[in-house]
Amino acid sequence: MAKSKKKNLDLLLTVEWKDNAVVMIDQTKLPNKLVYVKCTDYHQVADAIKKLVVRGAPAIGVSAALGLALAAQNSNANTLPELMTDLDTAFKELRATRPTAVNLFWALERVMGKAKRAKTLEDAKKTVLSEAQKMWEEDVKANKEMGANGARLFRDGDVVLTHCNAGSLATVAYGTALGVIRAARESGKRLSVIATETRPVMQGARLTAFELQHDGVDVSLIPDTAVGHMMARGAIKRVIVGADRVLRTGHVFNKIGTYQVAILAGRHKVPFYVAAPLSTFDFESDPKDVVIEERSVDEVVKVGKKRVAPKGVRIFNPAFDMTPPELITGIITERGVLKPPFEKNLKALLG
Amino acid sequence: MAKSKKKNLDLLLTVEWKDNAVVMIDQTKLPNKLVYVKCTDYHQVADAIKKLVVRGAPAIGVSAALGLALAAQNSNANTLPELMTDLDTAFKELRATRPTAVNLFWALERVMGKAKRAKTLEDAKKTVLSEAQKMWEEDVKANKEMGANGARLFRDGDVVLTHCNAGSLATVAYGTALGVIRAARESGKRLSVIATETRPVMQGARLTAFELQHDGVDVSLIPDTAVGHMMARGAIKRVIVGADRVLRTGHVFNKIGTYQVAILAGRHKVPFYVAAPLSTFDFESDPKDVVIEERSVDEVVKVGKKRVAPKGVRIFNPAFDMTPPELITGIITERGVLKPPFEKNLKALLG
Repeated sequence: MAKSKKKNLDLLLTVEWKDNAVVMIDQTKLPNKLVYVKCTDYHQVADAIKKLVVRGAPAIGVSAALGLALAAQNSNANTLPELMTDLDTAFKELRATRPTAVNLFWALERVMGKAKRAKTLEDAKKTVLSEAQKMWEEDVKANKEMGANGARLFRDGDVVLTHCNAGSLATVAYGTALGVIRAARESGKRLSVIATETRPVMQGARLTAFELQHDGVDVSLIPDTAVGHMMARGAIKRVIVGADRVLRTGHVFNKIGTYQVAILAGRHKVPFYVAAPLSTFDFESDPKDVVIEERSVDEVVKVGKKRVAPKGVRIFNPAFDMTPPELITGIITERGVLKPPFEKNLKALLG
Repeated sequence: MAKSKKKNLDLLLTVEWKDNAVVMIDQTKLPNKLVYVKCTDYHQVADAIKKLVVRGAPAIGVSAALGLALAAQNSNANTLPELMTDLDTAFKELRATRPTAVNLFWALERVMGKAKRAKTLEDAKKTVLSEAQKMWEEDVKANKEMGANGARLFRDGDVVLTHCNAGSLATVAYGTALGVIRAARESGKRLSVIATETRPVMQGARLTAFELQHDGVDVSLIPDTAVGHMMARGAIKRVIVGADRVLRTGHVFNKIGTYQVAILAGRHKVPFYVAAPLSTFDFESDPKDVVIEERSVDEVVKVGKKRVAPKGVRIFNPAFDMTPPELITGIITERGVLKPPFEKNLKALLG
């Protein structure tokens, strides 16, 4: 992966197809350095997803699709079946990078489905890239639509808590949860944001605080331990988070800590919203089917080079948790805002 | 697996009077280095309290009392009134170090009360030291008594969650909450512990994991964001924490994050216990009277030398929060276990 620094900070594009390569912001370097990495083969994309160079369910989905485009471009296949074999190998490697966010599987399957309908080698190669680029465009469009749908739920002057990063850095641009906040502000409402740090990987401190500050949004940071206290003080009026997977029943899988923020919101009568495009919905699985990724102990025991826990201590580091529907006030999608009962209303929304 | 590392570390004495000085473990260096610092005047003790070299309500109380003993020892006073003036100056400096934990005020006032009854300069100097040393001894005794009272509340095989560090490192030795866990284990019950990291200062990761591992107690560490998820999985059977101040109404002030752990325990029907010696009780104040210390932004934005938040972002860093009595199953003291209604039962306990 080649690295380069960009001075123009105006537009934070998390991932894009450029000069026959996939270029992404290296999110592991934020907030200290804004560095872009260039992936020229799909193994590099898979590695970037695993190491959280790119993260956030929608951004992972688009990145994986662009990874398939790299696989198609670089393939030495002479026939369509040979290309499909190469694509299938890439599909499997990309699919195995992370187990919880459903957008990854959705994106890969959508591109493969298109490729399978191609008639020629040439056609398949073109189709893979164009479908991935179409998803890239749709992501921004869906975020803007979610923003328009969700903005109405906020009041002028609201202080809004968000957990983890469901912002432009979790998507191609604009963001899901933070997209709604951006849209509410663009509609003239003065919102300010409280970001939780989001241990262990600190996406709230490193990414949400960074991108909101970058856009001139009023943002404060609190330790994850201070959520209950801030709510008890009446300092939080709304909560909005993203999602890695939403089930048809309204169960939401999202960054570890979301579940407890939802419980705290419920106790303090603070509305709790989830912003998720339909690509994040899983209409098949039941709660017990979803694998919750357990990540490396190194995320917990070290911050940078500083060891913050004794050697050899046992660590539990689940990356996600499940918030049940009864704790959720509404789920904001590009087609509208779902209210409980979610299963019934989701059917109606999809017609 | 948590492994016992017993070398010359058998006895962790947090603070003691030794060779006319106050010697304490430098807790800012744990878990990487076990280093002791020697304070030869009370300013150094005050500084150690402010900088969290020594922390934990009971340890702060005893340290401040020993700080007064240093002030008495180092005083150039030629008359008893001159000594009392010097002691009063030291009293004020030590009292102003931290605003929330009540043991600090209790300890300083108790020593000053004794000094005021002295008849001679010589007598006053001796009294200050002997009273501080008496409190040092009483601290360990109270912890052992709390342990005996609290051990009965735990069952063989329990997995117990604790937040922050209410262990030997928060007291002279043995600990309050962790003292109860030690006593339960000594009584033959196999307990294992889950420690929360406790952002921002990481007392759970740095201190609780360290001291339990040191004593061969089975201990695991989780991010503060994983408490709700672990409870939803049924992985936690009891919670026990310490306290910085307990009001007569049963309101408990403790490390930031305690309140939300109590809410999560309530929702998952996990008993929530507080272990606090009577020196931690404040029979005068109402909840609104208690000052919650707001600490430096540096505790949040940096871990070691690593910056984890963008420059200039606004931070809220309250060090404590308040848990209301309705969330507390029992308060373990050296005289017995208080159950709700706390105000009534506290009167009965004190006779």
